[in-house]
Amino acid sequence: MSKTKVLLLGAGFIADIHIESYKRFVPEAVLLGIYSRTEQRAMETARRHGIEKYYSDWKKAILDSDCEVVDICLPNFLHCQAACFAAEHGKHVIIEKPLCLNMDEADLMIETCRKYGRKLMYAEELCFAPKYERVRKTIKEGAVGKIFQLRQCEKHSGPHSAWFYDIEQSGGGALMDMGCHAFGWFRWMLDRAKVTSVYATMRTLYHIGRTKAEDNSVAIAEFEDGTIGIAENSWAKQGGMDDRIEVYGNEGVVYADLFTGNSALTYSQKGYGYAMEKAGSTQGWSFTIFEEAFNQGYPHELAHFIDCVRNDKQPVSTGEDGRAVLEIMLAAYQSAKTGAKVKLPFRPNVKKPIDLWLND
Amino acid sequence: MSKTKVLLLGAGFIADIHIESYKRFVPEAVLLGIYSRTEQRAMETARRHGIEKYYSDWKKAILDSDCEVVDICLPNFLHCQAACFAAEHGKHVIIEKPLCLNMDEADLMIETCRKYGRKLMYAEELCFAPKYERVRKTIKEGAVGKIFQLRQCEKHSGPHSAWFYDIEQSGGGALMDMGCHAFGWFRWMLDRAKVTSVYATMRTLYHIGRTKAEDNSVAIAEFEDGTIGIAENSWAKQGGMDDRIEVYGNEGVVYADLFTGNSALTYSQKGYGYAMEKAGSTQGWSFTIFEEAFNQGYPHELAHFIDCVRNDKQPVSTGEDGRAVLEIMLAAYQSAKTGAKVKLPFRPNVKKPIDLWLND
Amino acid sequence: MSKTKVLLLGAGFIADIHIESYKRFVPEAVLLGIYSRTEQRAMETARRHGIEKYYSDWKKAILDSDCEVVDICLPNFLHCQAACFAAEHGKHVIIEKPLCLNMDEADLMIETCRKYGRKLMYAEELCFAPKYERVRKTIKEGAVGKIFQLRQCEKHSGPHSAWFYDIEQSGGGALMDMGCHAFGWFRWMLDRAKVTSVYATMRTLYHIGRTKAEDNSVAIAEFEDGTIGIAENSWAKQGGMDDRIEVYGNEGVVYADLFTGNSALTYSQKGYGYAMEKAGSTQGWSFTIFEEAFNQGYPHELAHFIDCVRNDKQPVSTGEDGRAVLEIMLAAYQSAKTGAKVKLPFRPNVKKPIDLWLND
Amino acid sequence: MSKTKVLLLGAGFIADIHIESYKRFVPEAVLLGIYSRTEQRAMETARRHGIEKYYSDWKKAILDSDCEVVDICLPNFLHCQAACFAAEHGKHVIIEKPLCLNMDEADLMIETCRKYGRKLMYAEELCFAPKYERVRKTIKEGAVGKIFQLRQCEKHSGPHSAWFYDIEQSGGGALMDMGCHAFGWFRWMLDRAKVTSVYATMRTLYHIGRTKAEDNSVAIAEFEDGTIGIAENSWAKQGGMDDRIEVYGNEGVVYADLFTGNSALTYSQKGYGYAMEKAGSTQGWSFTIFEEAFNQGYPHELAHFIDCVRNDKQPVSTGEDGRAVLEIMLAAYQSAKTGAKVKLPFRPNVKKPIDLWLND
Repeated sequence: MSKTKVLLLGAGFIADIHIESYKRFVPEAVLLGIYSRTEQRAMETARRHGIEKYYSDWKKAILDSDCEVVDICLPNFLHCQAACFAAEHGKHVIIEKPLCLNMDEADLMIETCRKYGRKLMYAEELCFAPKYERVRKTIKEGAVGKIFQLRQCEKHSGPHSAWFYDIEQSGGGALMDMGCHAFGWFRWMLDRAKVTSVYATMRTLYHIGRTKAEDNSVAIAEFEDGTIGIAENSWAKQGGMDDRIEVYGNEGVVYADLFTGNSALTYSQKGYGYAMEKAGSTQGWSFTIFEEAFNQGYPHELAHFIDCVRNDKQPVSTGEDGRAVLEIMLAAYQSAKTGAKVKLPFRPNVKKPIDLWLND
Repeated sequence: MSKTKVLLLGAGFIADIHIESYKRFVPEAVLLGIYSRTEQRAMETARRHGIEKYYSDWKKAILDSDCEVVDICLPNFLHCQAACFAAEHGKHVIIEKPLCLNMDEADLMIETCRKYGRKLMYAEELCFAPKYERVRKTIKEGAVGKIFQLRQCEKHSGPHSAWFYDIEQSGGGALMDMGCHAFGWFRWMLDRAKVTSVYATMRTLYHIGRTKAEDNSVAIAEFEDGTIGIAENSWAKQGGMDDRIEVYGNEGVVYADLFTGNSALTYSQKGYGYAMEKAGSTQGWSFTIFEEAFNQGYPHELAHFIDCVRNDKQPVSTGEDGRAVLEIMLAAYQSAKTGAKVKLPFRPNVKKPIDLWLND
Repeated sequence: MSKTKVLLLGAGFIADIHIESYKRFVPEAVLLGIYSRTEQRAMETARRHGIEKYYSDWKKAILDSDCEVVDICLPNFLHCQAACFAAEHGKHVIIEKPLCLNMDEADLMIETCRKYGRKLMYAEELCFAPKYERVRKTIKEGAVGKIFQLRQCEKHSGPHSAWFYDIEQSGGGALMDMGCHAFGWFRWMLDRAKVTSVYATMRTLYHIGRTKAEDNSVAIAEFEDGTIGIAENSWAKQGGMDDRIEVYGNEGVVYADLFTGNSALTYSQKGYGYAMEKAGSTQGWSFTIFEEAFNQGYPHELAHFIDCVRNDKQPVSTGEDGRAVLEIMLAAYQSAKTGAKVKLPFRPNVKKPIDLWLND
Repeated sequence: MSKTKVLLLGAGFIADIHIESYKRFVPEAVLLGIYSRTEQRAMETARRHGIEKYYSDWKKAILDSDCEVVDICLPNFLHCQAACFAAEHGKHVIIEKPLCLNMDEADLMIETCRKYGRKLMYAEELCFAPKYERVRKTIKEGAVGKIFQLRQCEKHSGPHSAWFYDIEQSGGGALMDMGCHAFGWFRWMLDRAKVTSVYATMRTLYHIGRTKAEDNSVAIAEFEDGTIGIAENSWAKQGGMDDRIEVYGNEGVVYADLFTGNSALTYSQKGYGYAMEKAGSTQGWSFTIFEEAFNQGYPHELAHFIDCVRNDKQPVSTGEDGRAVLEIMLAAYQSAKTGAKVKLPFRPNVKKPIDLWLND
């Protein structure tokens, strides 16, 4: 079989990670083209990575590129449009988290892909991060007995791209950006158990003036059998990137983290090039990270998606999973408004999740 | 270019790691065939991994298999024979550490490969382990100023295969098996600086009765400019596999380890399948390792070697490097005998390194 | 000045810690006597520790012992009676957490001690634990800027004494037992900032059948300026005792823990005597703790209280602090019932906190 | 019994640690007086710590102070004089490591104290550091089976006081200063097993120009039964104070460290007051240490010595232990000169250990 042709929409931070992942780890795929809103950026990224074509019009890119798969790394508000357009034109879709901005969009994306017989592959890389998958395997082997509590935290001091801070483009702040991982991973660990309620509290404290969105949030999801998942997501915490999990069962516990837990420890008087994503100085002590894309699971995830396309398999992370996660997040924003837990199912009539928290 | 055809000699522990590395991470190569001393084992390994051909006669395997590269994972005493035979028959050679048993063999392997225009690629994976390479990069960026001391330790409680314990096949014990990594990595970190002397002390204490070889050793290599490298290698230490480094410079330090430093932490009342290479029980606390082959650098190493073959490049780790490491180890065994540091160059007239320690 | 005479009420787990603390670290105090409900136990404890007198009637002990200070390590339901009786008879009071079972009791204890001019010293040792105090000092020095989030977790798999499981004696489960530390420490770190609301979720999952009380809880306290404190308290988590904190500010973070963070790391095939409080097996890997009483701050706390008595100073942790913590816990139990955050002030009319969660 | 009266000779870094230890943890002792070479310093130290008398003449201090114990924290070259003078005048002696400069001095100190019936208590605090003592206890309980290898490392980037750098006052550099701890601790762990040989390598690399002494050293001591102890001592390593041990037995391993292993982890943009002894900046990440004197064992050690004086007991660390350690260190300096291991017993005719390394 010839290589699967992929068109990448987006040339920001996540797109770079996808590119590295394809190039180094997914030989069955070839990146045909890349889109960026700015032609200059599209061209430079294409040249830097040896991608043949570049575009500054994503519809044209989909129509012209002869790709089989469209990998969408665009701002959230474009997810629905781009996914539907791709499916309507015969392309399978890889869609970065969060799925989209509201449940109507989610339904439309799922239905459009179904109607056109195209796969809608939801890119939640924590379902693939090798260290977390290893943890999941030990739990399947009985390491902790029955899980009763999970915790997932992610932090850094704010994303790179400006669109994250514009709620019209992002739909929300730290919870919208990172909560996906927490809720997606909880469902993954609990075999897609149903969330019955969500409580959340959030605040804008560090990026005041730059955004209306929350930059620090804590949410507690409760599952049918009483299991709880605690999600702590922040764009306000200092000290660099951090992603960690805790699993509690009646017969054991597991702790793991993807950054400091995979690092070398360096003390440098003068500092050096780069320690980790969004870290501060490299003077004094620092946690030196390696193979960041691999350790976060992006290569494993994209390899899986391409394999599903090539062999017509069902991906382990689909649009339905993305929609379930979106529903949990909508309930979280509502809870942060009311101060009470919000029960699921929950289908509010809003354009984007953060409206529930901000509006009266 | 079509895939590079590789024949694997050996079906033991290291061979499994090579197979996983090729299959998952080196798409430019194809494993044509596998040799094992026992036909049964060769057949099962071939079937398990989808390798087309299997052999129980390694010369026949080299002659018949139509391979371009022979990857030698055989007992040490066969390294020289197999490498020379392969080169004489037009094959490039990947040779697992240690290079061979003595300097005459080393010279012969290097000369034979040179004469037949074949590459002799010495498989020291610590030059490729992603975490250690990240450390090397930070040091190149000036993180610690000038290095003055290195330390590399590896431990487990004894290898799997019986041949390690037979000094006629192995040539030595823990130092022969693991010291390669230490000395190879010291040279790699110090840009192949010359070792001027070696001091070592060794002992058989845990596997007494099973082997005449040393199962615990400590060696100190001194370099031209006074830098020292401390190598601690053991088949006698408990608690599972461990591989760690320390780098000291006049402006900083770096600590890194490949096992506990890359693990999840699990507490399990009942235990679970597998924590790490040669670990004990998984009851109670354990360090749960993931992606072991990747984290030790085998895929990066083999991808590099295949790239060198495909594009006719010079590998970063060659037979000359293997010979330099062998010389250091010979000096170490001699030092362990005399109780004094041994100066290099050192070219004793022995069949295998451990003879220097054991014999009068 | 002669030594301050102390009478200890209680001979359980915490009492042992108090005894060790006085004997090793508070030379200005002398333990005159000890009370236990069972005469046998009182006698043995007294003999083991060289305490002169023992009693099985606590009122008699207070009347007879000629003590200056009564140190109350009794089941929660006795706290109010014993403290008031002690103060009425001219004794200063050290009262272990939680202060008592309800706000009426709290007011009575505070008022009684005030009326009789006796100190009511609330024993929240996390305000004294040397590692956590060191953290507080770095924060006072500006290490993290302005705090916006705190987290405190404590876990083990269930207390020793039977009374904890009897809600008539304890008043509640894991939150009542451990939440004191979290909320006491949050107030201590935030200079007694006011809690404006509390959300909590709790469950009985591990000790079902043994208790009606919750054995796993998560609570979020919100403060006036938006700072939040996350408290995770559990009698259901495995792997031994754990007590850890996280401090997040707009300019930094601090992580610390009192157990694994102060331990040696041991791998033992056969196991050994004792690793830590409520740990499982010492076979395989274990975290070996030392100086547990010292590291948790009990000696520092008791030395402070005795100093306050000797020099008529105001203790840094008083009955008013204990009452404030009790109010937060009452709100937490209420929140766990309603599923909504509960605003403070909160003064329910219940006999004990857990009634809010259990009763309709 | 009234308090034991102690006279402290010295007002440098170690003297401050001794003072804090007595004041906080050894109530049976009272510091009557303090000596410093500079009267100003003696006066300020005395005032700061509430010590009644101060002296700038140590003989006068011993004669006048009416002390029972002289605690000697003076430069090494004064140890013998001061100890003998103290004993001759009826005082017990606490002597900081190293015991003295040569074996003749050692014999004289031991003999003088014996003759005058005074205790000679050798202050090796690693025999008392609570974490290390906890480790020793687990090993006595069988945790690791039979020990075959030990490692002790200490590092910082150079002592405070100028006398350390003057070999006439110190007698040697990093090995003389820190090697005491390693060798003293090895003997303590192995029940005073006999050292049969020592190999060492050393270098002056960081403090060149400031001292003739070695500032980085590695030594390997071998014991009668083949057990080895690796000592790494450095005044050249960056990153702050570090003291760690590794214990290897045929049935287990133990790792422990006194600094990073007992710290909080802080990330601070701006930095804060003090992280640890001889640490660099507190900007970025740092390891925040607490209760340093306690965790290194000084209070436990001094409490033991005072108890021995009060109750006429034999101290667990005596002048004989100090002499045995000195002999090992002398052999180490000799080995560093010759490049061969040096057998014990070893009694060179030198004034100070470093003469063996420096002189022809």
